[in-house]
Amino acid sequence: MSLPTDRLIHETRFWVRYAETDRMGIVHHATYVIYFEEARNQFSRDMGASYADFEKEGIALVVSEANLRYLAPAVFGQQVVTKTWIDDLKSRRITFGYQVENPESGEVHCTGTAKLICVTPEGQVQRIPQQWLESWGRALETK
Amino acid sequence: MSLPTDRLIHETRFWVRYAETDRMGIVHHATYVIYFEEARNQFSRDMGASYADFEKEGIALVVSEANLRYLAPAVFGQQVVTKTWIDDLKSRRITFGYQVENPESGEVHCTGTAKLICVTPEGQVQRIPQQWLESWGRALETK
Amino acid sequence: MSLPTDRLIHETRFWVRYAETDRMGIVHHATYVIYFEEARNQFSRDMGASYADFEKEGIALVVSEANLRYLAPAVFGQQVVTKTWIDDLKSRRITFGYQVENPESGEVHCTGTAKLICVTPEGQVQRIPQQWLESWGRALETK
Amino acid sequence: MSLPTDRLIHETRFWVRYAETDRMGIVHHATYVIYFEEARNQFSRDMGASYADFEKEGIALVVSEANLRYLAPAVFGQQVVTKTWIDDLKSRRITFGYQVENPESGEVHCTGTAKLICVTPEGQVQRIPQQWLESWGRALETK
Repeated sequence: MSLPTDRLIHETRFWVRYAETDRMGIVHHATYVIYFEEARNQFSRDMGASYADFEKEGIALVVSEANLRYLAPAVFGQQVVTKTWIDDLKSRRITFGYQVENPESGEVHCTGTAKLICVTPEGQVQRIPQQWLESWGRALETK
Repeated sequence: MSLPTDRLIHETRFWVRYAETDRMGIVHHATYVIYFEEARNQFSRDMGASYADFEKEGIALVVSEANLRYLAPAVFGQQVVTKTWIDDLKSRRITFGYQVENPESGEVHCTGTAKLICVTPEGQVQRIPQQWLESWGRALETK
Repeated sequence: MSLPTDRLIHETRFWVRYAETDRMGIVHHATYVIYFEEARNQFSRDMGASYADFEKEGIALVVSEANLRYLAPAVFGQQVVTKTWIDDLKSRRITFGYQVENPESGEVHCTGTAKLICVTPEGQVQRIPQQWLESWGRALETK
Repeated sequence: MSLPTDRLIHETRFWVRYAETDRMGIVHHATYVIYFEEARNQFSRDMGASYADFEKEGIALVVSEANLRYLAPAVFGQQVVTKTWIDDLKSRRITFGYQVENPESGEVHCTGTAKLICVTPEGQVQRIPQQWLESWGRALETK
């Protein structure tokens, strides 16, 4: 997978937390699922559409699929930058693409996707509210 | 701190999970807070009073205080046994005592306490329902 | 994905931990990556080939790929059973298949795979030691 | 506990991560142990004395005690600021004080302390290297 050239790429930067490492001395692989999540939430906040507000409308985006490829370990003492983009947007689902890199060296630690579907509290699939489709749609047209 | 001799000691046993270790090669210290929580939930289940049912009554027990002393590291490849007892029980709060040990060697990894208070969803302190006071009270009288 | 019919299926059972839930009231999706890991470690232990011993030989299995499909949420108050099998075994890599179910209802929460490669501490890919290839190979021939 | 008035208070700010919440809808209480850790690591980085470098000297600071008081829940959608100071500094141990607040409202979520001791990889207590004693010592004299 490589970064798309035709759309907005959002960047979120964190310091690796000590608690995120494991006894192999590297960031534990489950952590990237959380980096992905936090990066898409930061993406939404930076677009003026906080996911906390999304849930206030009584609906939620639940992850229906996650795929991760691990390329090189990240370690404590470094930062990671998570590049996030909207890979696909449908009326009921959104797919984000991710690439986690070392901002110093450019080395790629992990790439992946997360597919989310819009559901009611009872778990019924439902249309993403128009305002959100439009916000996220703008990220597809940006370039 | 040493184990009380006058009351029921509940034991919960887990395998250390790889994800719980950190790059020092040992169980990360925040993990014990989760061991404590899971041990008291198992304690309640074994008393026939699942905490999941407690929350169904529209109330919750929130942790108001946690204190931990770390004595010797636990590592991947071992089990840990968490010994749990009720240290104190009041009408609105309950304090659990803990000792996490290596079941093979008896070595003590961590001791501590967690104080919980009964609250409504709005965060107002409230009386623990009678049935639960009685269940937990029995654990105080057992020996 | 469905369970394979031609090979050994290992089962590991946990109680959902409170800390594993999120504010949606369900097990957070990153948790399944940890369930997968813990299930394959339990699988190895039950085969008499603890992964803790594997690392003692100065090598490690690092996850190079993880794929998860989320079908139905798991909640606090229930157990989950993780069914694990060896999907593919090569001289330098092993792929595990997973299905996480509610043991009461049989409902499937999540399915997935994790591909691991054998590396030296310096990150160089290397052959899985013969003894381990044989142990895991037996799990492929069991049925 | 209240903030000390006679020494340097370091501030680290995070967004609450979704994965850090639990089904009560609030930041899970074990998360604060990780906030504390990350805040003291940021404190060290900002003093020009990264803890990653500390471990390169073949020694480590292990937590020997942690004490937390929970005052008001933090939620997804907000930031938290962790105020950190050095509460006590001895030749072989350092104690940090913490106060986690909502930066918008000033509400205090959690206060606490973490005591760390300097050890060799074999777990033997040892003197904190002079350079680090001096770095941290400056944070005690700053005001």
